[in-house]
Amino acid sequence: MSAVVGTDLVCQVGFIVKDINATKKKWAEFLGVEEPEAALCGEYETTRTEFKGQPAPEANSYLAFFDVGPGLQLELIQPNEAPSTWRNYLNEHGEGIHHVAFNIKGMKMPEAVKRCEDLGMVLEQKGEYGDASGRYTYMNAYKDLKCIVELLESDR
Amino acid sequence: MSAVVGTDLVCQVGFIVKDINATKKKWAEFLGVEEPEAALCGEYETTRTEFKGQPAPEANSYLAFFDVGPGLQLELIQPNEAPSTWRNYLNEHGEGIHHVAFNIKGMKMPEAVKRCEDLGMVLEQKGEYGDASGRYTYMNAYKDLKCIVELLESDR
Repeated sequence: MSAVVGTDLVCQVGFIVKDINATKKKWAEFLGVEEPEAALCGEYETTRTEFKGQPAPEANSYLAFFDVGPGLQLELIQPNEAPSTWRNYLNEHGEGIHHVAFNIKGMKMPEAVKRCEDLGMVLEQKGEYGDASGRYTYMNAYKDLKCIVELLESDR
Repeated sequence: MSAVVGTDLVCQVGFIVKDINATKKKWAEFLGVEEPEAALCGEYETTRTEFKGQPAPEANSYLAFFDVGPGLQLELIQPNEAPSTWRNYLNEHGEGIHHVAFNIKGMKMPEAVKRCEDLGMVLEQKGEYGDASGRYTYMNAYKDLKCIVELLESDR
């Protein structure tokens, strides 16, 4: 047996929040760490965000990260109003845990996505990192895995 | 600054599911690992489960665990029909990610709970491990942290 996306290590737990500044203040207090900066995902010229197979130039979100383990981050995401996996989650579920992420290894993103699709997952959103250092894909895996799975590929 | 519960390391991500056998089969396939056994939490004589401040002798669930990082587990939870944090989540949210957990260190459970309560969290459920090797407390932290936080204390 081998992992479908080349790894069995969760590298991120992602939360959707309404007010990233208020929520990261509370998480920093709880974890006993410095409050991280929040920054936008990036500009569409770089991120090339696609949501449900369509270009989504307006979709964006503020992000902030906490280290919560060896190789594990907690990610806070405050979406803007444009349709995206983040905004849809907030509209449909309210604030809460949106995804778990895996750093894909030993394969490129198209192959990882194809393997997930073969397992019954549905590509929901994808884009490049705002600093052009890699890319992400959100696979909707609610049917079988009961969550959204994010695939991350770093070029560094 | 120090962590409110003595650690900033997430040790578990907990999912509520309807059919633990079906879901753990899919997760095992995705992760490329052996399918773990599912087992009941334990007998009330040992677990002494309390839900919302009241004894909950009927509350129970099947649990299965996957290792998904150094010190990180993915936990699948199939609740029975009796009221519990697990059953309530399933009724109100459907299947999905229910909690993140922290192994408390350097303090006992009552102190950890008190510190969380001072931060505005609400004790939702608690109990002893089914093998009497420790205890857990679910703190409702939706208001500020946007999730349920589970505290784990092992006597081993």
